[in-house]
Amino acid sequence: MFKKILIANRGEIAMRILRSAKEMGIETVAVYSTADANSLHLRFADEAVCIGPHSSKDSYLKQINILTAAEITNSDAIHPGYGFLSENANFSRSCQKMGIKFIGATPENIEKMGDKATAKETMKKAGVPTVPGSDGLIPSYEEAAKIAEEIGYPVMIKATAGGGGKGMRAIWKKEELEKNWEAAVQEAQAAFGDGGMYMEKLIEEPRHIEIQIAGDRFGNAIHLSERDCSIQRRHQKLAEETPSPFLSDELRKKMGDAAVKAAKYIGYEGLGTIEFLVDKHQNFYFMEMNTRIQVEHPITEQVTGLDLLKLQIEIAYGKKVPSTNFYPKNHSIECRINAEDVYNQFLPSPGKITNLNIPGGIGVRVDTNVYPHYSIPPFYDSMIAKLIVDAPTRKEAIDKMKRALDEFYIEGVKTTIPLHRQLMEDPNFIEGNYTTKFMEDFVLDKKYEYDL
Amino acid sequence: MFKKILIANRGEIAMRILRSAKEMGIETVAVYSTADANSLHLRFADEAVCIGPHSSKDSYLKQINILTAAEITNSDAIHPGYGFLSENANFSRSCQKMGIKFIGATPENIEKMGDKATAKETMKKAGVPTVPGSDGLIPSYEEAAKIAEEIGYPVMIKATAGGGGKGMRAIWKKEELEKNWEAAVQEAQAAFGDGGMYMEKLIEEPRHIEIQIAGDRFGNAIHLSERDCSIQRRHQKLAEETPSPFLSDELRKKMGDAAVKAAKYIGYEGLGTIEFLVDKHQNFYFMEMNTRIQVEHPITEQVTGLDLLKLQIEIAYGKKVPSTNFYPKNHSIECRINAEDVYNQFLPSPGKITNLNIPGGIGVRVDTNVYPHYSIPPFYDSMIAKLIVDAPTRKEAIDKMKRALDEFYIEGVKTTIPLHRQLMEDPNFIEGNYTTKFMEDFVLDKKYEYDL
Repeated sequence: MFKKILIANRGEIAMRILRSAKEMGIETVAVYSTADANSLHLRFADEAVCIGPHSSKDSYLKQINILTAAEITNSDAIHPGYGFLSENANFSRSCQKMGIKFIGATPENIEKMGDKATAKETMKKAGVPTVPGSDGLIPSYEEAAKIAEEIGYPVMIKATAGGGGKGMRAIWKKEELEKNWEAAVQEAQAAFGDGGMYMEKLIEEPRHIEIQIAGDRFGNAIHLSERDCSIQRRHQKLAEETPSPFLSDELRKKMGDAAVKAAKYIGYEGLGTIEFLVDKHQNFYFMEMNTRIQVEHPITEQVTGLDLLKLQIEIAYGKKVPSTNFYPKNHSIECRINAEDVYNQFLPSPGKITNLNIPGGIGVRVDTNVYPHYSIPPFYDSMIAKLIVDAPTRKEAIDKMKRALDEFYIEGVKTTIPLHRQLMEDPNFIEGNYTTKFMEDFVLDKKYEYDL
Repeated sequence: MFKKILIANRGEIAMRILRSAKEMGIETVAVYSTADANSLHLRFADEAVCIGPHSSKDSYLKQINILTAAEITNSDAIHPGYGFLSENANFSRSCQKMGIKFIGATPENIEKMGDKATAKETMKKAGVPTVPGSDGLIPSYEEAAKIAEEIGYPVMIKATAGGGGKGMRAIWKKEELEKNWEAAVQEAQAAFGDGGMYMEKLIEEPRHIEIQIAGDRFGNAIHLSERDCSIQRRHQKLAEETPSPFLSDELRKKMGDAAVKAAKYIGYEGLGTIEFLVDKHQNFYFMEMNTRIQVEHPITEQVTGLDLLKLQIEIAYGKKVPSTNFYPKNHSIECRINAEDVYNQFLPSPGKITNLNIPGGIGVRVDTNVYPHYSIPPFYDSMIAKLIVDAPTRKEAIDKMKRALDEFYIEGVKTTIPLHRQLMEDPNFIEGNYTTKFMEDFVLDKKYEYDL
């Protein structure tokens, strides 16, 4: 097994990696920016190396500093966590060249899946469903009508120069297309100076459901079932659960099989996540692949009994993946606790934690890097803790999350805890009746901002 | 279901009960002595009633105060936790008379199993193995030799007036008995003024292994497998684990069946624990029954996926027990964190917690009632937290416990954490090679008293 792993990250994921490495008897090296000198994981790592000032580009993203730290500490592996350099093909290749194992995807895998267009093409070839649409721009209304007929209504027509929701129209039937096509082209021309249009199938009531996969260097791949990540605000996940309340056993198996097919097609080595959009008719479409450990991986751990970090490290060392897929044995939910003021446009709320009570007891897991009197630096992602529960049923998991959120007490900074309290009491959430649009209609209620 | 449960206890078990009640949607009433006004569970209970001054006999043991608190708060059930009134038949009966459900054993069950001699007789009748021995005092050497032959060497001869290890001799064969009998009688006469002697089979290399059982009012009973509680100091359990490294699947089944037989024989309703001594030849003998929830119940929860408090509350309300026995699916260990100075005769170490870091992450559970700046009162049991881990294998559980103990940081008071750190590195413990005598030979090493 590896003798020493350098943890090229910060925050809760640095603690997460350190914990599994320690339990495996592997030495650890923490690296930190000057802003993170009081980070919890530095206390528990065998060695700690400062890699630069607070700015990420000069520290956590500075490849040469991290590689130098690995060399001087004689580390034989680097774990990049998520974000930062975790999906950087160039960094993965540099590690390879230096003879240091990058505990993540190969440069080739990252390159294949990193670019969205390339990834979509690759998945099409692998036989994994992608969102149907035109091949590039559509020259005329007649052509548009033909494509729409092929992929089936409803469709979206989109201005190639548009974006962020602009220059898009939903079209539900042929007459609408006829009525709208020319107007849309002219509008795009006027708004963006480019009338180029393309078409995609409209995903009705989309859910973001991702499949955790694991592949090894021997060509084996398995899936570990899904995580429902539809509770998002501006594409930022807020809470995740598994199993998804929307998935039938049959659809779970179909999506799992598709994800395994994708992993095998590209010869994927390590842990990865295939993100799908699922529409209300239970059609699913490849969105993107994350070639790293995900923030929300703990819910998969809580329902499979696997330690994904240990598995990831073992695969990187050359072990085979388990021989069967894993299906959820119980229910797990994660709430992301961010230092943000949910009642004030989710503005970051860094600063000193003056008082802290962390929930505990049966079925409650907290992954965090904060402690009493810790000061949250203003320079990084605002997530400070992940609160994870598991219970035999979804209802019990929700009730447990409510109980745990009530016990979670952070003084000195604002957090997303009140939002999660409200979410756990939302009738639609309780019914499992939500899509990626759920948070758009979610009106925050101040009454959940209570203190102990 | 019950509408409101009064929690007639303090400390971590009060939090434990409160958590499950809250998750079940049941209102809770906390009661507290004046010394416990800052207790954590008071913050989370729906109501709190002061029931007296710090002395237990005037508060947590004062039945009338607790019953009054239940009446004025309109509680329809009382959970007694462990210790205090949890095995008090009179209190159980008083609750019954007042129409308040006592979430524990019936007065009849408590009476049947509360007195050790009566319990042993009852178990003999039920066909559960008890430690073989003389029926009362032995009049002569000839009679002693006959009994020893019957129950088989080795045996212990014990002075009826002795106790605490005094007035006992281990006898390994007939010649030794002949040589020792008269001397032992005369010694007892001289030491205690009473030469009366009785005999019991000597349990070689005893292990304390208990079986968790659950019975309902319909006559059903199941077992939830064992907990090995052999790591004890002066009959105080320090650490527990399940499965026991000593038990074969066959013996587990045999002991489980015996425990179920015992529960059914007495018509036991609720959760209970049958404690056995197991000798090196894998013979097991009934020791006593605890008619309440045990301190170490969480390790059973971690390997069965059951919430024992919820189960206990449901049974008390009239539900049936599950229809099958439960066997461990993984491995769990609990370390009791007591505020004691292990390097100074385990003297209690109450006082203010000036700094606190509670371990977390995958497979780590902490049941506690302490928080940063909490003052541990000097009046009660010194246990302040239970650190529980679970992992797929025993080795992984030990490695995880080491990791979690390293993260557990309590400043301001002395604790048993250093002892547990040493225990987790003890070669005999790691081998699973220990008996109830283990702690007698355990030499505490100061090097485990490290700080962060």
